[in-house]
Amino acid sequence: MPLSVERMRKEYFQELESLRDQLVDMTELVRKAMSSATQALLEANIELADQVIENDTAIDSLNADVEDRALELITLQAPVATDLRVLISGMRIAQSLERMGDLAVHVARAARMRYPRTAVPPELRFTIEQMGAIAELISAKTAEVVKDGDVQGAFELAEIDDDMDELHRSLFIAILSPDRDVSIEAAIDVTLLSRYYERYADHAVTIGKRVVHIATGEPYAATSID
Amino acid sequence: MPLSVERMRKEYFQELESLRDQLVDMTELVRKAMSSATQALLEANIELADQVIENDTAIDSLNADVEDRALELITLQAPVATDLRVLISGMRIAQSLERMGDLAVHVARAARMRYPRTAVPPELRFTIEQMGAIAELISAKTAEVVKDGDVQGAFELAEIDDDMDELHRSLFIAILSPDRDVSIEAAIDVTLLSRYYERYADHAVTIGKRVVHIATGEPYAATSID
Repeated sequence: MPLSVERMRKEYFQELESLRDQLVDMTELVRKAMSSATQALLEANIELADQVIENDTAIDSLNADVEDRALELITLQAPVATDLRVLISGMRIAQSLERMGDLAVHVARAARMRYPRTAVPPELRFTIEQMGAIAELISAKTAEVVKDGDVQGAFELAEIDDDMDELHRSLFIAILSPDRDVSIEAAIDVTLLSRYYERYADHAVTIGKRVVHIATGEPYAATSID
Repeated sequence: MPLSVERMRKEYFQELESLRDQLVDMTELVRKAMSSATQALLEANIELADQVIENDTAIDSLNADVEDRALELITLQAPVATDLRVLISGMRIAQSLERMGDLAVHVARAARMRYPRTAVPPELRFTIEQMGAIAELISAKTAEVVKDGDVQGAFELAEIDDDMDELHRSLFIAILSPDRDVSIEAAIDVTLLSRYYERYADHAVTIGKRVVHIATGEPYAATSID
């Protein structure tokens, strides 16, 4: 017996809702991954680092699943322009989250590589701690923004990202300061770590732009968040 | 007068062809951007660095244009699964190319920041030259792979990427070698530069995976290129 058009539409909207829930779940997994990676890094905790690396496959699978489900909806429903924007943006958000998960893995690998030492020299520990705190803040905000389609929140993501960029710059100044005695190895490690945190926050801003694009239809590239 | 179905299909395939051409053109612009950025870096050529930074908006526009055109085709044509895969993958390829353009801009900015000096210390110059050469090689191959939908070529991209990864590792070993007298500033610069080249090649591999996905329908995540 064929479904009524009404019932098909209802199921379609339920599917869209469920896709959104999945993105929120992914954001939460990514937040935990970066949070654990930071802890593993600062405490030279190799078990925790391994866990982050291992758990990343779950994030990758969620990304593949979002893509499959979105493509299925596009094929079956031939959505109008607005719904298509939601579905394509959902796929893009999942991609950004997947990449954020990869960056958490990079941080965990850095922790692993220097074990049983820590990759962060004592004098730069505070800056990395702050970067971890900002990563936590921007992840939690990203979950809210995705959940509520919150345009104002998307702009707040960009503000938090500015703080991350500021820390990224201050770290280089700190490493280069003549009164710091940072080894070349530590300089390399911390340069890469700082770059991972900075990119992590950039991806959160990209997600915010996508949410604005869904909400307003404003072209993605022109979205005035930066 | 309404178009015949046959004529609509013909125009649709012409549109797909033209999208592919646009991706090939984008690849060529990106190749030139990285090639010029490398030259600007090694020769401390600030005019060339500025040109790379300026020209990046053209690459960004092409990405936005590919996205708009692909979305329009999806909305108007309600493509079957195979065609949808081509269109979505085309959008993804454009995104990767846009990001490769950004990485060329990062290299150009590094050249700019140390002007009139060069950001690369003499003893690491050869490695960065090699990275530039591999970036050139992988860009040219990417253009071919996109143009011909060449699955074998996609695997070659992964081989070229292995060479880039090897250089990336060898650079760190070189910086850390006790007989090199590399300053902390040079270590930071070269660490980031090496990371930009390495990511640039990663994106080419991602494009290769997308081309395989178009050609075979094999799920993107399972594509055995790595």
